[in-house]
Amino acid sequence: MSEFDIIKQFFTRPAHHTNLSVGDDAALINVSKGYELTVSTDMLVADTHFFHDAAPYDIGWKSLAVNVSDMAAMSSQPKWATLAIALPHVNETWLSEFSRGFFACANTFNVDLIGGDTTRGPLNISVTIMGEVPAGKALRRDGAKVGDDIWISGALGDAALGLAHLKNKLHSKFNLDDGYIEYCLEALHRPQPRVALGLALVDLAHSAIDISDGLLSDLGHILSASKVGATIQLSKLPCSLFISKHINEKQIQQCILAGGDDYELCFTAPQKNRSAIEKISDELHLPIALAGNIHAGAGLVVLDENKHKVILGKTGYDHFA
Amino acid sequence: MSEFDIIKQFFTRPAHHTNLSVGDDAALINVSKGYELTVSTDMLVADTHFFHDAAPYDIGWKSLAVNVSDMAAMSSQPKWATLAIALPHVNETWLSEFSRGFFACANTFNVDLIGGDTTRGPLNISVTIMGEVPAGKALRRDGAKVGDDIWISGALGDAALGLAHLKNKLHSKFNLDDGYIEYCLEALHRPQPRVALGLALVDLAHSAIDISDGLLSDLGHILSASKVGATIQLSKLPCSLFISKHINEKQIQQCILAGGDDYELCFTAPQKNRSAIEKISDELHLPIALAGNIHAGAGLVVLDENKHKVILGKTGYDHFA
Repeated sequence: MSEFDIIKQFFTRPAHHTNLSVGDDAALINVSKGYELTVSTDMLVADTHFFHDAAPYDIGWKSLAVNVSDMAAMSSQPKWATLAIALPHVNETWLSEFSRGFFACANTFNVDLIGGDTTRGPLNISVTIMGEVPAGKALRRDGAKVGDDIWISGALGDAALGLAHLKNKLHSKFNLDDGYIEYCLEALHRPQPRVALGLALVDLAHSAIDISDGLLSDLGHILSASKVGATIQLSKLPCSLFISKHINEKQIQQCILAGGDDYELCFTAPQKNRSAIEKISDELHLPIALAGNIHAGAGLVVLDENKHKVILGKTGYDHFA
Repeated sequence: MSEFDIIKQFFTRPAHHTNLSVGDDAALINVSKGYELTVSTDMLVADTHFFHDAAPYDIGWKSLAVNVSDMAAMSSQPKWATLAIALPHVNETWLSEFSRGFFACANTFNVDLIGGDTTRGPLNISVTIMGEVPAGKALRRDGAKVGDDIWISGALGDAALGLAHLKNKLHSKFNLDDGYIEYCLEALHRPQPRVALGLALVDLAHSAIDISDGLLSDLGHILSASKVGATIQLSKLPCSLFISKHINEKQIQQCILAGGDDYELCFTAPQKNRSAIEKISDELHLPIALAGNIHAGAGLVVLDENKHKVILGKTGYDHFA
C-alpha cells in the first residue's frame, strides 16, 4: 500500500465547505466576510498522549476532538482541519479504525479534512484546525475582568480518574464500579468538545479557555494573561457523584484540579449574565457551574467547604517540567 | 525548563500580519478580501526526513522551507505557519539553533509563526503553512492542457546527490570535488523555495507542482490530475555541470528524475507565454528550463539525446511503497 493509496482510502472524504481539498500542494478555502480565521495545532504522541495500543478509533476521535475544543474555547465555529500522521508501519485495520474515529468527530462537528501528510516514523498525530469567529468577538485568555464570575462546564476529573485506573495508580481505598469506570474511560478516550457552548458565549463571556492541562494550570493562563487573581470553591466545582463524595481526598482533588484531559470550558463572565448563562445550560442540557470569581491581584486560591485554603500540589501537566 | 518557557524563549517572535499570535487557544488572522486561503502541512521525522544528528539550524530552515515551497507551487503568498514539535528531551543549544534556522526562513519569506504545540516524544516536526492567493487564480495540478510547455526551475538532482554522498551510496567512479559537495549539501539542507517565481506565474501557467518526491512522481501527479500525457527530454532538464557531464549514468539519472528534495517548481504553460516566462527567469536571476511538452494520452516518456526512451527505475520517494 503506497502513501497515496493510504491517503485515498483512509483520508479522502467529501468536503462540504472547501474549494479544493486533499490532493494538491495546498487546499483552498474561503473565509466568510466579517469573520476572522482561528488556527490551532495539537500534536499527539504515542505513549505520551495515548497508549500505543489504545483503540485506534479513540485515537482518531481524540486527535481531532482536542483541536475542536480549542475552537470552542475561542467561540469559533470549527470548519477545516489538516492531519499529519507518522506511522511505524502500515496496518490497514488500524488505519481503518483510526479513520473511522477521526471522521466520526469530523462529521459531528462539520469539519472538512482538507489536507495533511502521511509519513513513516514513530506514531505521531498532528492536527491543525481552522475555524471562523465574527471579527473582534473571539473569547481570548486576556479578557477576564475584576468582578467576573468563573464558570466551568460539564464535569472535571473523570478522565484523570480513568487514566489513573488504567495505570493502576488509583489508591486501593477507591472502589470504582464497572459502570463508573466505563464512564471515566469514555471521558478520557472520547472527549466531547463544547462547541455549542463556546458559540453561545460569544456575547456573554469575557474570556475562556478549554481545560486540557488541568483547571489550575488553564485558569492560571487566564489569570496571568488578564493580570487578575481568582478564588474558586472546591465544593462548587462540577463533578460526578463519586468525586463529590471523595472531594477531601488528595488524589481526587488532584484529578479535578490538575488532572487535565477534561476538555471542558472554563470561562469568565460579568454577574449580569448569570441568568443568560443558566438558560444556555438548560438549552444545551449541559451543566455549567458557577465556581468562583475574579478579583484584583494575582494567583489562584482554592477554598474548601470550611473556607480553608486547599494546599495545591502539581498544578497541571507540563511535558518538560 | 517548562513547556511554556520553551515556547516563550524559542518560538515567540513579533508577528507582522496576525491579529493574535502565539499564546491563546488559537491564533486569529484576517484573510484579505478577494483572496482564498491556501493551507498545507508537512511533517518531518528524524531519520526519515533528516539525520537525527543533522545541524539543528538546517532542520529548522528546512521544516519551514518545504512548506513554503507548497505555497510557491500554488502561486500563493505564504503568510502564516504553526509549528508542532515533539522533542525527546530539552536541549537548549539544539532548540536555539533550530529556532534560529526556522526564523531565518520565516523572515526570508515574511511568514509569521502564529501557534503550535510543544511536547515530548521522538523528534518530529509538523508545520502547517497558510497563504493567500487571488480567488480562482491558484495554480493547481489539474490545469495542464494539451500543447502546454513543461518548465522546470533551478537545477535538479543536487540534493539527491548530496544525500547519496552522506550515505556513502555514491558509486566510486564519481569524484565530487569539495566545492561541489558543499553545493549539493546546501541544496539538500537549505532548499530555497521558489516563491517569487510561483507568484510571477499566476497568470502565465496552467498548472504547477513543487518537486519534493522526484520529478517523475511529481510531474506524474500533474498528468493524472489533468488527464494528459507528457514527453520530456533528458538533455533539457536543468542541472549542474557535473550532472550534465554524467547524464547517461543510471545513478545520476535517478538523482535528477526520482531523487526528490529539489523544491524546484515544475509547471506547464501555453507556448504563447514563452517569452514572458524567459523574462521572469531573467528578472529573478533563476534559470527556468523548457524541458518537454504536454500531449494527449497518459503517462510520461523521457527521451535521451538520441530520442530513445530512457528506462525509468524508481519514480520517486514513497514512505510505504
